[in-house]
This record gives sequence, structure tokens and C-alpha cells, in this order.
Amino acid sequence: MLELLTSETPNGWKVAILLEELGEPYKVTPISLTNLEQKQDWYVALNPNGRIPTLIDHDADDFAIFESGAIMIYLAEKFGRFLPADPKGRSQVIQWVMWQMSGLGPMMGQATVFNRYFDEKLPKVIDRYVRESQRLFGVLDAQLADNEYLAGDYSIADMACFPWVRGHDWAGVDMSGFTHLQRWLDAIAARPAAQRGLLVPTPPSAEEMAEKTTRQGQNILA
Amino acid sequence: MLELLTSETPNGWKVAILLEELGEPYKVTPISLTNLEQKQDWYVALNPNGRIPTLIDHDADDFAIFESGAIMIYLAEKFGRFLPADPKGRSQVIQWVMWQMSGLGPMMGQATVFNRYFDEKLPKVIDRYVRESQRLFGVLDAQLADNEYLAGDYSIADMACFPWVRGHDWAGVDMSGFTHLQRWLDAIAARPAAQRGLLVPTPPSAEEMAEKTTRQGQNILA
Repeated sequence: MLELLTSETPNGWKVAILLEELGEPYKVTPISLTNLEQKQDWYVALNPNGRIPTLIDHDADDFAIFESGAIMIYLAEKFGRFLPADPKGRSQVIQWVMWQMSGLGPMMGQATVFNRYFDEKLPKVIDRYVRESQRLFGVLDAQLADNEYLAGDYSIADMACFPWVRGHDWAGVDMSGFTHLQRWLDAIAARPAAQRGLLVPTPPSAEEMAEKTTRQGQNILA
Repeated sequence: MLELLTSETPNGWKVAILLEELGEPYKVTPISLTNLEQKQDWYVALNPNGRIPTLIDHDADDFAIFESGAIMIYLAEKFGRFLPADPKGRSQVIQWVMWQMSGLGPMMGQATVFNRYFDEKLPKVIDRYVRESQRLFGVLDAQLADNEYLAGDYSIADMACFPWVRGHDWAGVDMSGFTHLQRWLDAIAARPAAQRGLLVPTPPSAEEMAEKTTRQGQNILA
């Protein structure tokens, strides 16, 4: 059995969507970021970085994996899906997963922090991260102008980018004008597995979400 | 023949160090960040993100690869070195490569920008990125307390983190007190291949470095 320790964030949804696409059984263990559960000793023993998500493969001696991108590669290789086997095809998918991990995620993350959580409004800093996020949207849009998906068939590269792009309003990043990106976003949003993954670990109510966000923001800055 | 298009930055040095460790012949094509060569059409056709490095494998129909972490995985798999073949060992290495790509690199990068390039000194923003970088140093230090290298034998995970940690002074991040990390840093710095990799594409003089830095900083913010 696979176990996903996760919370309601893009990095958690990425892996949940992949698990739903794979259709393999898995157990969900919600981690409360509000209570800083990801910093507790038992969790850090599984995930030395103290962040979500973590995957435990109980069929492989309880092997624990951290970093969402590494979890996606592990699962894709374990089940032989959503990552081609030939060197070029597989590298192209890994290139876009790396690009999401090193660029899209961190930059939209910083845009979110300075738009929502930082205790001072710093327009020049917000502008830096919003503009960089939009540059990255442009990179995606150009790639998707000639390609249905980012790297060949629908793959872990698309699943990695999808929850981040979907959260553009939350991060304060306008995506109007990126028509190819919008087409791709709509196509993935229509997939039942993606819809199910976005409900993991729990579908929060609007009220819960608002309260949680405020408190998580305090923890992010702690 | 392999061709590395690169410049004097940690992400470029990572790949150069791996190529030197592999001992495979490769051609170096310097890319001038000062002249924004990485944004020119011919380069973006190879690397859609417009950043360095790019690897071209001329023995594989001129296959072009972007994202330093993806290049490292491609080379390690092509030559069967510095990345274990068994699922757990290989995942452990990929986990730390992902951690470098998503955390150590972006956060030290932001520390560098706000310490060196941003046209306004914003102490609270600098503090955010310096503290996050030091948290990440703590994650490395804890891992290296019980392990000679990050994930089993010396691997692409160590090579990925090394040039970033080595540049801690440049980024304005104090690493005193991280004794296990210092031991690891010194061990890799003593490797002839690492020393050669750090001279790619060219060993700049101190004067060139200072001038280049000022102008690159302007471009980073452009």
C-alpha cells in the first residue's frame, strides 16, 4: 500500500492527481500545516526538509520519499506510466518537471507570500515575482502553442504544472492572454482524476480555507 | 560529442563538474549573460526557458536538454555513473537533486538578488531569504552528520548542491556552525574534477568578475 502524507497545496495536489490517474489504492494522511505538524520530529524523520508531501511505499519496506517531483518520478517508474522509457522522451518529461520544481513553483510561491502573507506591502518585490511568474507562463504558452501537452503525451510534467497554473488568481498572477495555456488548463481540469486529486486530503469549505490561510501565512513567516 | 552551453554560475558549474567527473570529452560554448545571449532566438530554440546551462548531445541527433537537474540525470543515466540503478538508491539521489533545484538554488538565488542586485535595500526581505537559506543549510548539515555524502556514494546530488553551498559568502549567507556541511564542502572542493569544473567556461580574473557582476545584476532585474 502507498501512503500519501499531504495537505491542500499545489505540491500536494500534484502527487494526489498522479495517484488518481494511476488508479492505484493509497491511504491519505492529512498533515496540518496550521499546527506545524510538518515540523514535528516524527514527520522530519520521514521528510528531512519538513515540508509536504511525503510518500511512503509500504510495499517497499516503508520507503519514504520527499520532494514532490521525486515522488512523481518514483511512482511513474514504479508503475511504468506517464513517463516514457526511451532516453529522449523520458528526459523531455523530466526537463519540464525540473522546470516546474525550480521555476514555476518557487516563483509563484514567492508571489503568493508577498501578495498575501508578508506583513508589509512591497510593490517592487510583488512586481518582481508577478512578472517572473508571467514570464514563466509565457514559456508554457509558447511550448503549448505547438504541442497538446508539455512533453509528448499527457505526463507527470503536465500534472506537476497544472495545480500551480490553476492557482494563478490565488498567487495574484494574471494569466489573461495566454490562450494556449488556458486551453491546456481547461483540458486537464476536465479530467476526472485531476478533479479527484484536487479534493485530497479534504475538500475544505470556503470559511475553513480563509481561516486556515491566515494562520498558515503566519506560520510561513515564523 | 557533448556540448555544454554555459556561464560562470552555480547551475553551470554543477554540470561542468559532472562532465569532469565522468571524464567524457565535451565542447564548451560560453554564453554571455552580460549580453543577454541566453535570450536570443537561436538559444531559446534550444532552451525554451532562456537560462543557462543547455547540453546538446551531438551523438543523439543533437538532442538539446535544459534545466541543470535534468541534464545531470540524463548524463548519469547515459553513462551509468553517479546515480544508482536500484529504485531506492536512485530515488534517494533524485530526491536530493530535486531539493537542490526547488529549495537551495531558488532561495540562495533570491538572497543573492536582494543582497547584491536589487536597487533598494530591504532588510526584512533579505532576512527572509538568508534565514530560509540557513534553514536549508541545517537540513544538509543534519543529513551529513550521519552520512559522508547526501545519498549513499558521491553522486549527482552532491555535485548539484556543492557550487551553491560554496557560494554562501557571495549570497550573503553565513554558514558558520554547520560543521558537517563544512567537512563535506572541503571534501568535494579537494576533488580535482570539481576544481576543473569550477573553471568552466573560463577562469575569470577578480576584476572581470566584479565588472561582470555589476552588469549581470542589471540584466537580472531587466
